[in-house]
Amino acid sequence: MKPSRRNFLATSAAAIGAAAAAGAFRAGASQVEVKNIINEGDVILFQGDSITDAGRERETADQPNNQKALGSGYAWVASSHMLLARPAADLRIFNRGISGHKVPQLAARWDADCLDLKPDVLSVLIGVNDIWHRRNGNYEGTPESYERDYLALVERTRNARPRIKLVICEPFVLRCGAVTDDWFPEFDAYRTAAARVAEVNGAIFVPFHSVFEEASKLAPPEHWAADGVHPSPFGTALMARTWLRAVGL
Amino acid sequence: MKPSRRNFLATSAAAIGAAAAAGAFRAGASQVEVKNIINEGDVILFQGDSITDAGRERETADQPNNQKALGSGYAWVASSHMLLARPAADLRIFNRGISGHKVPQLAARWDADCLDLKPDVLSVLIGVNDIWHRRNGNYEGTPESYERDYLALVERTRNARPRIKLVICEPFVLRCGAVTDDWFPEFDAYRTAAARVAEVNGAIFVPFHSVFEEASKLAPPEHWAADGVHPSPFGTALMARTWLRAVGL
Repeated sequence: MKPSRRNFLATSAAAIGAAAAAGAFRAGASQVEVKNIINEGDVILFQGDSITDAGRERETADQPNNQKALGSGYAWVASSHMLLARPAADLRIFNRGISGHKVPQLAARWDADCLDLKPDVLSVLIGVNDIWHRRNGNYEGTPESYERDYLALVERTRNARPRIKLVICEPFVLRCGAVTDDWFPEFDAYRTAAARVAEVNGAIFVPFHSVFEEASKLAPPEHWAADGVHPSPFGTALMARTWLRAVGL
Repeated sequence: MKPSRRNFLATSAAAIGAAAAAGAFRAGASQVEVKNIINEGDVILFQGDSITDAGRERETADQPNNQKALGSGYAWVASSHMLLARPAADLRIFNRGISGHKVPQLAARWDADCLDLKPDVLSVLIGVNDIWHRRNGNYEGTPESYERDYLALVERTRNARPRIKLVICEPFVLRCGAVTDDWFPEFDAYRTAAARVAEVNGAIFVPFHSVFEEASKLAPPEHWAADGVHPSPFGTALMARTWLRAVGL
């Protein structure tokens, strides 16, 4: 293992420890300084489902830093703030989230929609459809298959891109709209699985669900995501800030 | 002058220097560490016009940290992120922006809507109506009267609250919608006047216009504010982040 990778893993492990202790958002704000993982010239790729997709334009998907290509969700909001904060960093940011996708569908398009882009930073938010589609009777997956397939996807990614900096986002729901109490405790099993995928890979973990739980004490869950799954502009802004803090920006 | 006030002014002066050099948003992101001015137990008041008002509910205006009372604009988004980042800080945040207001209208309601709240931190964003209403023929004000009246308002505030921490926000427009090229260079005179109000009072200056000028290179101005004056959710998120960085959060 090269020193630069060891440093990254050490930093990430500290971030995970902080996240576990208090939620990365809160920890980043006061006690713990999270080291910035974004370097000059980095190719940054956002991957996931509809929350990442957020209406992005397919025709311009190959153009980095393009608002339409990045959509209207947290990926674009976080990207715009990164690009404005670091105008000279020569970052190239892409979004390849697709609505409705689960882990196996990411795997099916991983060469074209991840590895071929040669990302230096990969951020993944996946999982809500893995539980939602199963609950609707349209999918056979379980928290166990989610974790196994997710681990395999990350291993495949690291084999192809050994120095990649990984950002694993916690799947989240708000307790409103389509999301009923009987999503729990099953949903927590998906959150825990994602946290383990982050931990065993020394990845940054972005605690979206934990942050939305706290936010729901400040304003009703519907304020952050009317249907419990897709964030409002307020939920989107909160996600962007949480993501930026988690990566140390 | 008490030491704590001197310290605040020294900190603020450094922040203004940074803002002048590169825009506080950019400077805060990399070269310059802006010291946090928000302390435990602070009463924080947002004041201004429609951009601050942002549909806030009047009935709940006396309830701190209430989403409806804080509206749907940058004041609420910045507040929610502050409250989530510092849940134990016992902050009490209010919004008293009113649509359409100019400096003289702030002055007319300043006792009830500022001094009586005994704010520790006062953030003011005012100016776009001062030029807009004059251009429409509904107001006689000039950049000179704006600066004079704004300076008097701040002096009155400091006389009543000698240790108040002041945040003066740069008035901004985007070059689209209602805003045509012939708003310039007159609009710049209002921006400069606000910067001077900040500087002579040792206040934090939040460079909204400069940030939106940069943002308009990343995505069209309409993306950030369709009518050139009232920010979209993306403009709102950018304002919240810019404000939080300027106050060192």
